[in-house]
Amino acid sequence: MNDFVGINLEDVADWFRQRDDFLVLTHRKPDGDTIGSAGGLVQGLRDFGKNAYILYNTEITPRYEPFLSEYWAAEDYVPKHIISVDTATTELFPVNGDVYKESIALSIDHHPTNTFFSEHTWLEPQRAACGEMIYELLINLNASVGEKVANNLYIAISTDTGCFAYTNTTADSLRIAAYLIEAGAMHNELNKTLFRTFTKSRIMLEGMIYSGLEFHFDGNVAISTISQQMLEESAATDDDTDGIAAIPGSIEDVVVGITIRESIVGEECRISLRSTEQINSADVCARFGGGGHAAAAGCTIAKPIDEAKKALLEVLGEYFP
Amino acid sequence: MNDFVGINLEDVADWFRQRDDFLVLTHRKPDGDTIGSAGGLVQGLRDFGKNAYILYNTEITPRYEPFLSEYWAAEDYVPKHIISVDTATTELFPVNGDVYKESIALSIDHHPTNTFFSEHTWLEPQRAACGEMIYELLINLNASVGEKVANNLYIAISTDTGCFAYTNTTADSLRIAAYLIEAGAMHNELNKTLFRTFTKSRIMLEGMIYSGLEFHFDGNVAISTISQQMLEESAATDDDTDGIAAIPGSIEDVVVGITIRESIVGEECRISLRSTEQINSADVCARFGGGGHAAAAGCTIAKPIDEAKKALLEVLGEYFP
Repeated sequence: MNDFVGINLEDVADWFRQRDDFLVLTHRKPDGDTIGSAGGLVQGLRDFGKNAYILYNTEITPRYEPFLSEYWAAEDYVPKHIISVDTATTELFPVNGDVYKESIALSIDHHPTNTFFSEHTWLEPQRAACGEMIYELLINLNASVGEKVANNLYIAISTDTGCFAYTNTTADSLRIAAYLIEAGAMHNELNKTLFRTFTKSRIMLEGMIYSGLEFHFDGNVAISTISQQMLEESAATDDDTDGIAAIPGSIEDVVVGITIRESIVGEECRISLRSTEQINSADVCARFGGGGHAAAAGCTIAKPIDEAKKALLEVLGEYFP
Repeated sequence: MNDFVGINLEDVADWFRQRDDFLVLTHRKPDGDTIGSAGGLVQGLRDFGKNAYILYNTEITPRYEPFLSEYWAAEDYVPKHIISVDTATTELFPVNGDVYKESIALSIDHHPTNTFFSEHTWLEPQRAACGEMIYELLINLNASVGEKVANNLYIAISTDTGCFAYTNTTADSLRIAAYLIEAGAMHNELNKTLFRTFTKSRIMLEGMIYSGLEFHFDGNVAISTISQQMLEESAATDDDTDGIAAIPGSIEDVVVGITIRESIVGEECRISLRSTEQINSADVCARFGGGGHAAAAGCTIAKPIDEAKKALLEVLGEYFP
């Protein structure tokens, strides 16, 4: 756990010991890791006798709001030191964080893409979640890890690891989660909310997606189609469609999983590709002006669903002759 | 971790130290916990210098077979001591285990419903998985925990906790899993196989289940029905239906999730209940001669699907008047 870039854990702990009056920034479209890291850090610093707040994030969702409600900075709060958590670039700052772009004192992050925009950067890219780093920091500070800290850090680690199922999960992720449970994290309630509860809309939409799945090229390619009509019938919100693009790629023996989501009825589709090492998703999407990573990429095709599908199958036919 | 019934960990460790030539029994419809516990125990005992085999389980599925293939007892193997793992009653023995019903020397189990059918019973009902107990046993024996043991015990603990998301998950479950990863468990490959890959049959079956979901008592009770026809149409195997009983209980605001699975067309259904703390699933299932845990229980009702559903709704009507 010594893969750090910039300053290391001990230096960061000293940095906090010698300072006070902190403001913590989260990233746009806040996920569990940025939320939980910010909440855990601020509560931990407060328990340690420091003054700390979080910059209000206008995109906070109802699921996470209760965990941060007591930490939002008042408009007249004058911080001395600005910190960002789980944020790789200043472009990911919320709109009201723009004013701090040039004045971040410390960036705590686990993204290998961090652009070193901060005076100090504590980066541990091997960490599954930024929340693991906050835990190590509080332990190093000899700060107490109470129930509120534990809940926030459990949210951070469990969400970024898909409840310990994603490939980023390490022995440390599990061990820290074990400590957090002993420190009072309500893991049962959190797991149920975050990982074991689905809305009726989600279940209904998944049912429609499953019924409409298509397989091509001897089962190497699976295509899932989501029309505007399906979204309306299921009354699915953005929360309900979270992670839905992973479905076709999660089917046994599928090499390329494609999700075609109608964005403008009869006119435009947004395409998500997930692939195994056999096919480069970014290459396929580049053919349609899109991009991304080898294992996951996307593009937009200005055609109705059936024609977009036909165009994709034509390109994929080159890979599966 | 001192909630034991019968003999305790230290006694069990001594019992193993003083004996040799073991045969381990798994339960019918073997799940990850009985498989992984048996595999981990036998490999651990072998590494410890003992002679140990597993009684062939005719219901072993292709998913788990590779993990036990080297442990199956030859037909002429003459064991001195018979052990069962993760098995609450002798009725759960596989058919070829019937001959051992009266001669089990040690039952290692975490089911509170264990009937004490064995000469010695090591029961820790607070354990999420029997696999955790096997881990503690091997540590107490000072036996090595190598890659094969680690894989088997990781399978046991991760499957019984739904990849650490179910309410039975404890800090110990996570901590032991962390040790197993460090001991060489291929958690990434296992997680992908066990929790992030679905067969076409599974996806097809889920689509049918989602379309047929019913809600009763103001949405407090969700019922999923799986007919033999659905299983045939989707060509679903036992592996494909693993964990499928959790679906209705995973829907927002549902207190009791019921899965009715037709076991004999028009004649018999197997029922699975999952519930929040508000309702004791075992109590409900006991009304039909079944049993289990407060949060998850089962029973068999010798009626066609519709009549079984009616009988269940009548009993549940007492809870939701």
